[in-house]
Amino acid sequence: MSDLITLHPDAQAQLFTDARTANTFTDEPVSDEQLRAIFELAKYPPTAANTQPLRVLFVRDEQPRERLLAHMNEGNRAKTAAAPVVAVLAADTDFHEFIPRVFPIRPQMRDGLAADAVARERMARFNATLQIGYWLLAVRAAGLAAGPMAGFDADGMDKEFFADSSWRSLLVVNIGKPGPNAWFPRLPRLDYDEVVRHA
Amino acid sequence: MSDLITLHPDAQAQLFTDARTANTFTDEPVSDEQLRAIFELAKYPPTAANTQPLRVLFVRDEQPRERLLAHMNEGNRAKTAAAPVVAVLAADTDFHEFIPRVFPIRPQMRDGLAADAVARERMARFNATLQIGYWLLAVRAAGLAAGPMAGFDADGMDKEFFADSSWRSLLVVNIGKPGPNAWFPRLPRLDYDEVVRHA
Repeated sequence: MSDLITLHPDAQAQLFTDARTANTFTDEPVSDEQLRAIFELAKYPPTAANTQPLRVLFVRDEQPRERLLAHMNEGNRAKTAAAPVVAVLAADTDFHEFIPRVFPIRPQMRDGLAADAVARERMARFNATLQIGYWLLAVRAAGLAAGPMAGFDADGMDKEFFADSSWRSLLVVNIGKPGPNAWFPRLPRLDYDEVVRHA
Repeated sequence: MSDLITLHPDAQAQLFTDARTANTFTDEPVSDEQLRAIFELAKYPPTAANTQPLRVLFVRDEQPRERLLAHMNEGNRAKTAAAPVVAVLAADTDFHEFIPRVFPIRPQMRDGLAADAVARERMARFNATLQIGYWLLAVRAAGLAAGPMAGFDADGMDKEFFADSSWRSLLVVNIGKPGPNAWFPRLPRLDYDEVVRHA
């Protein structure tokens, strides 16, 4: 472990180096208070013009969970059926309506974005995805494991849950305490020199 | 601070609650070893099929920095000129070439993606953006401040630095120790009930 990282080694392990994507979960429930505490941490890191376009739909009960499962890829269904709670993470393409409140320095940004749906959707998806990165680490900060899944039908999911809204689904995440055989073996990471250049 | 968060309070403060986007920096240099330590932490959290499409160009010297500044929005130029090091974070649209090594469970994914440039670019941008979320918190884990900026000409930046490559710029980030008057006042965050729904 590098002494150039000032974050406490236990925190490095909990968020980055030891934490793993869980594929099974125990029956231990995840409370609404835990979900709120995750949000209260994840809300702070930065987004462009403080726009915060990430939205979250939590699914627990049997009926909405059946509707959710219908849009998951086959290989993701069993674990999504078994997780204590499932989050559908989405971008709000109408995030600009909040700009006068969250970015009072430049309230007129709202009107510019209102007139440009393409720029707005691009900005919504980019910044909400950034926030998903923060949010996944915040799940780990709550002592829980996350199981993010890109394998689902996003258009179907949007019609199912967001037909009346400006939310667009980006990622589905199982949340809970890891169960038996929760992890696959760790897969290799790319080397620094494959990922980094110096100009 | 919530007792539902098991992460140590100092770590919560360092990564989430106290950390701020810096707009000025001291002269204290950021070493290559620090940049490598940031990567060694940020590389672990998950990406779809372990594809890890995030790439980083670091800019320090005067000549490449002038080329960089030419593509930054006016309001971002002075701080980008003054930061000890600047990172251009990018998505590698040819990330699929690494799949047989990083996702040996399904090496044939490489060929499917080779034939679908649209799906590939979407996957590259989404997963690289997730990784930027992890990476910004890893900068903070190194005791440094980040100053992320979306205000630049991405096409111009790509022609300037990535004309010969499959990298596409997503975000520019100043890195260093915060200088005098580094922070603007904290802007308001959205409320839990504005962001979250239960199905």
